[in-house]
Amino acid sequence: MLKLAPSILAADFKNLGQQVIDVSLAGAQYIHLDVMDGAFVPSISFGMPVISSLRSCTDRVFDVHMMVEDPGRYISDIRAAGADLICVHAEACTHLDRTVNQIKEAGLKVGVALNPATPLSVLDCILPELDMVLIMSVNPGFGGQKFIPYTLTKIRNLRNLCKERGLDTDIQVDGGVTCDNVRELIDAGANVFVAGSAVFKGDAAANTRDFLKIFEEYEG
Amino acid sequence: MLKLAPSILAADFKNLGQQVIDVSLAGAQYIHLDVMDGAFVPSISFGMPVISSLRSCTDRVFDVHMMVEDPGRYISDIRAAGADLICVHAEACTHLDRTVNQIKEAGLKVGVALNPATPLSVLDCILPELDMVLIMSVNPGFGGQKFIPYTLTKIRNLRNLCKERGLDTDIQVDGGVTCDNVRELIDAGANVFVAGSAVFKGDAAANTRDFLKIFEEYEG
Amino acid sequence: MLKLAPSILAADFKNLGQQVIDVSLAGAQYIHLDVMDGAFVPSISFGMPVISSLRSCTDRVFDVHMMVEDPGRYISDIRAAGADLICVHAEACTHLDRTVNQIKEAGLKVGVALNPATPLSVLDCILPELDMVLIMSVNPGFGGQKFIPYTLTKIRNLRNLCKERGLDTDIQVDGGVTCDNVRELIDAGANVFVAGSAVFKGDAAANTRDFLKIFEEYEG
Amino acid sequence: MLKLAPSILAADFKNLGQQVIDVSLAGAQYIHLDVMDGAFVPSISFGMPVISSLRSCTDRVFDVHMMVEDPGRYISDIRAAGADLICVHAEACTHLDRTVNQIKEAGLKVGVALNPATPLSVLDCILPELDMVLIMSVNPGFGGQKFIPYTLTKIRNLRNLCKERGLDTDIQVDGGVTCDNVRELIDAGANVFVAGSAVFKGDAAANTRDFLKIFEEYEG
Amino acid sequence: MLKLAPSILAADFKNLGQQVIDVSLAGAQYIHLDVMDGAFVPSISFGMPVISSLRSCTDRVFDVHMMVEDPGRYISDIRAAGADLICVHAEACTHLDRTVNQIKEAGLKVGVALNPATPLSVLDCILPELDMVLIMSVNPGFGGQKFIPYTLTKIRNLRNLCKERGLDTDIQVDGGVTCDNVRELIDAGANVFVAGSAVFKGDAAANTRDFLKIFEEYEG
Amino acid sequence: MLKLAPSILAADFKNLGQQVIDVSLAGAQYIHLDVMDGAFVPSISFGMPVISSLRSCTDRVFDVHMMVEDPGRYISDIRAAGADLICVHAEACTHLDRTVNQIKEAGLKVGVALNPATPLSVLDCILPELDMVLIMSVNPGFGGQKFIPYTLTKIRNLRNLCKERGLDTDIQVDGGVTCDNVRELIDAGANVFVAGSAVFKGDAAANTRDFLKIFEEYEG
Repeated sequence: MLKLAPSILAADFKNLGQQVIDVSLAGAQYIHLDVMDGAFVPSISFGMPVISSLRSCTDRVFDVHMMVEDPGRYISDIRAAGADLICVHAEACTHLDRTVNQIKEAGLKVGVALNPATPLSVLDCILPELDMVLIMSVNPGFGGQKFIPYTLTKIRNLRNLCKERGLDTDIQVDGGVTCDNVRELIDAGANVFVAGSAVFKGDAAANTRDFLKIFEEYEG
Repeated sequence: MLKLAPSILAADFKNLGQQVIDVSLAGAQYIHLDVMDGAFVPSISFGMPVISSLRSCTDRVFDVHMMVEDPGRYISDIRAAGADLICVHAEACTHLDRTVNQIKEAGLKVGVALNPATPLSVLDCILPELDMVLIMSVNPGFGGQKFIPYTLTKIRNLRNLCKERGLDTDIQVDGGVTCDNVRELIDAGANVFVAGSAVFKGDAAANTRDFLKIFEEYEG
Repeated sequence: MLKLAPSILAADFKNLGQQVIDVSLAGAQYIHLDVMDGAFVPSISFGMPVISSLRSCTDRVFDVHMMVEDPGRYISDIRAAGADLICVHAEACTHLDRTVNQIKEAGLKVGVALNPATPLSVLDCILPELDMVLIMSVNPGFGGQKFIPYTLTKIRNLRNLCKERGLDTDIQVDGGVTCDNVRELIDAGANVFVAGSAVFKGDAAANTRDFLKIFEEYEG
Repeated sequence: MLKLAPSILAADFKNLGQQVIDVSLAGAQYIHLDVMDGAFVPSISFGMPVISSLRSCTDRVFDVHMMVEDPGRYISDIRAAGADLICVHAEACTHLDRTVNQIKEAGLKVGVALNPATPLSVLDCILPELDMVLIMSVNPGFGGQKFIPYTLTKIRNLRNLCKERGLDTDIQVDGGVTCDNVRELIDAGANVFVAGSAVFKGDAAANTRDFLKIFEEYEG
Repeated sequence: MLKLAPSILAADFKNLGQQVIDVSLAGAQYIHLDVMDGAFVPSISFGMPVISSLRSCTDRVFDVHMMVEDPGRYISDIRAAGADLICVHAEACTHLDRTVNQIKEAGLKVGVALNPATPLSVLDCILPELDMVLIMSVNPGFGGQKFIPYTLTKIRNLRNLCKERGLDTDIQVDGGVTCDNVRELIDAGANVFVAGSAVFKGDAAANTRDFLKIFEEYEG
Repeated sequence: MLKLAPSILAADFKNLGQQVIDVSLAGAQYIHLDVMDGAFVPSISFGMPVISSLRSCTDRVFDVHMMVEDPGRYISDIRAAGADLICVHAEACTHLDRTVNQIKEAGLKVGVALNPATPLSVLDCILPELDMVLIMSVNPGFGGQKFIPYTLTKIRNLRNLCKERGLDTDIQVDGGVTCDNVRELIDAGANVFVAGSAVFKGDAAANTRDFLKIFEEYEG
């Protein structure tokens, strides 16, 4: 199933609750929450207090993308804040199996995120344990970037890999996703789409519906 | 002059703009913004995108408390986000003079924050360069703490030190400040007061006015 | 040749010498020594002084598993303490070839350990240089874990890889090994077996002999 | 009251239980347990499993000296292992008040240790909160060192400081303490004495009694 | 095209300008500049001030090999110092695509260096973005090493990989390259050769010409 | 005795040997060598190979200023490169007494450097062990800075402190020292003067002699 995950990083933090309600009512299945620590990535975005404030606004899936060093430290706090799904970076986890299982044992869905240049081979052992893989199509935590073309091949290779191993893993793409390139991404094998300014620039509800209409074409 | 600095960390992030407007209209002179990175302190609060979203809500002093490792990395971003005053921790700066001067050269007011157990002697050389010293009266970044009694002596000693050296430095206190203990803090020599739940729990505007009324008694 | 490596981490530290003597006399070929630094793994176990105290108790192979950051720092100390074989983690070595050769130049056998999720591809270049590969079948340094089933496939893949490249590398398994699952591990291609509580819970000598009996069935 | 704290780092790890029993029966009031992580100090000694194994051997005070980075991470594990008193290094704690209070809240006695060159001024604020100060009279974690003469002055200064502030804080000395120099240390104001090889080299019980006899002379 | 890159690390720093002029006039196409930070590698060599001093001596390609942690911090400084090509280590870059693109956006050629044991699979995604791959044939930053034989296979595999993907990427080798083994390296597929003592020990100009003569045989 | 320490960081690295000879012949007593690692300070300058190349040019005191993290790692390499005196930063040494003694045991003179904002109290215990204290009068490792006025008071306070304790410690100043302000620094109590561009901009020999002439006035 195709799903939209509007990233609140592109929303207006003055009035976050209303915007989360808007995209939820418009049908977005996930709310994408980008936690940045200024160490794994060069920027600090927001953390637990922002996530927990928003939990009462919506029943959509809170999809937390941990762009932080050693994310295992935060699993119980992030869960308490209201996460449904936690994605950790392979590059940030020395004990990746451990962190993945901490998330599962907390009763949450689990994903692993890969930076653009990180090869799929890092997933060789852990892939069957995951609900989702997040393919970064820009470099996380740096502003003003465009979709990196070679990540399209990466998505395609990952979907093939999953099929070969009999896995129905979700593939999420994050970075430069728009209504213009989302069909190409669906064709490549992705099924969960993070969209920041493509949703929150202008009318967030209308933009959400535009994405969902494209999804319906595919699924209808 | 006595000043109130409501800390938005205790506000509701669903509806941050309105709350900042409320305390501003009620007369709070500063808006206290606690940036935490999960490394200097164990929690991640919020960073640049939240600060810059709020800038249009108020013309009050944006007083940014950097609970982050090596804060020099962020000065230009924090300034661009709208800061008027930046406070860095002595414990987080190997090159404290450098960071203090980076902030000044950016055209901002500068403060140095000290953890509860950090002795005043770390300010021996740099004190005359500062607009403000922030005395932490709880441990930064850990939840549910009460005002640490021995920091009262520390405030008193710092005020005496400033007087001896002919300095009119602002002394800010952060942690467990309420209408009940603020008189004692004023008497000890503090003049800028961070208040979190004491402002935002309940009616933020009314709470703000309660603090300001006490300040007026002193200054009237 | 099949070998048993009782891990003293599960022994009683009140009376370590006797226990090492017991498993040695019962026929264990290796003594497995788990050095943990609280940085690569979250626990601190023991280091050089414990190893060197035990050296006089036995002539068995001292097989030291370095669960430490940048293990190259300790090679000469660990050798002086009495090690015969040192295993370092691929995830802890930026200069893996260098560390492997430091160990060889110290006149010791050398192994590389892989965390459960670490892919075999990290060994692509270095495999022919190694005496042993240690496949972690639990996450190192975290208590109370069970054998991770997918590591069985990993052992099988590694044994095939060795065969393809004409290598007779030892494959050690560490984590959740018992008399009940050791046959499966032998079938998969492992030949050195770390056992903690499976040896030291109860009668260590008897438990050791139980393992060795199984080994004899295979080798007999 | 004068107390002896034999450091098991100088004991024989083959047979630790018996040695702890010996010094306990001979009258040593404390058992000094030196936890080293290879990061704060260049060596790894031992950690939780060794401490908890020994707990059943004696009811003496388990005095744990944490020569580790960020010791706050281990308080609950060290307490569970059987500690009665935990000493952390000022140089290893960014949030010293926090760590001190974590230890107190765990129901344990608390000390702060200072490296030889660390000035007493780091204790300016926190001193009244402490049960003990540990003055290192050698550099922790480096072998084969002699008592550093200038630390005698430091002990004297600290005792005076405590008196001036009306505090009855224990002062522990660690490094190069022998029956030959212990009188000088008592005269300077120390009252808890860590002794390693001075106790465990030769007859540990006899050596313990030699120290205690000197203490009796003073206290008789 | 085959190119020689004399590494000034083996030159005499008393008289660096003349030596750079000598090898330039003798025909060396590149000047190899090894920046070491004492963190990624255990030695500190030289940095920006040395590079910029030399820029006026020659118009040859300044090929800067960054043996430093997080090299993205230095790109603009290294470019300002006069670099034409920057090589960063895959092991030192969490955000490898980002760093590669920083270098490209600075208008420079870009390479990625791999330590001896680092598998080629780390280049799976990023290879087509690169002008050069640097295969380390010794461990960077450690003195007195010989060419590691297995890296010959690695060069061969990389050249095949490039051919399969239709790429004409430069392959540079660094470590133990001499006139005696350079033919073997050319045959394996390398085309840019770092030479340190093989150039600067003795008559640097003559040594340079010896290498170039071999190159001519191949290319003639 | 007043001494000049020309810092080669301001020299031309194309032709370093000749410049070191020039200032030596002109009478400079020290050659100041600024080692920077890009971690303690944001720049990488040069390290061991540059120092050892220069050793044959002069018999002047090689005064090595280690602007590096954990300088204890390099003492034996820096000594082998030809250092006579090593200065380490108090801010970079957790085990300051240990590092100071490592330098002494290597048979070298030892100094401790303090960043501008670092209080003199960090020297409380270690001062009598030192041959020299280096007062930074700019922030180390950042370009284009002017002499920080408040460090003049710091020099004065340090000289008084030394006198009170009966010590004849050398006081070195580094940063923005010129023929124009050196008299003021002498009056304040400094006696070793690092000069970079003030020596090497223009005629290094003549500039050196200008400084020495001023020194003679004082000492004559």
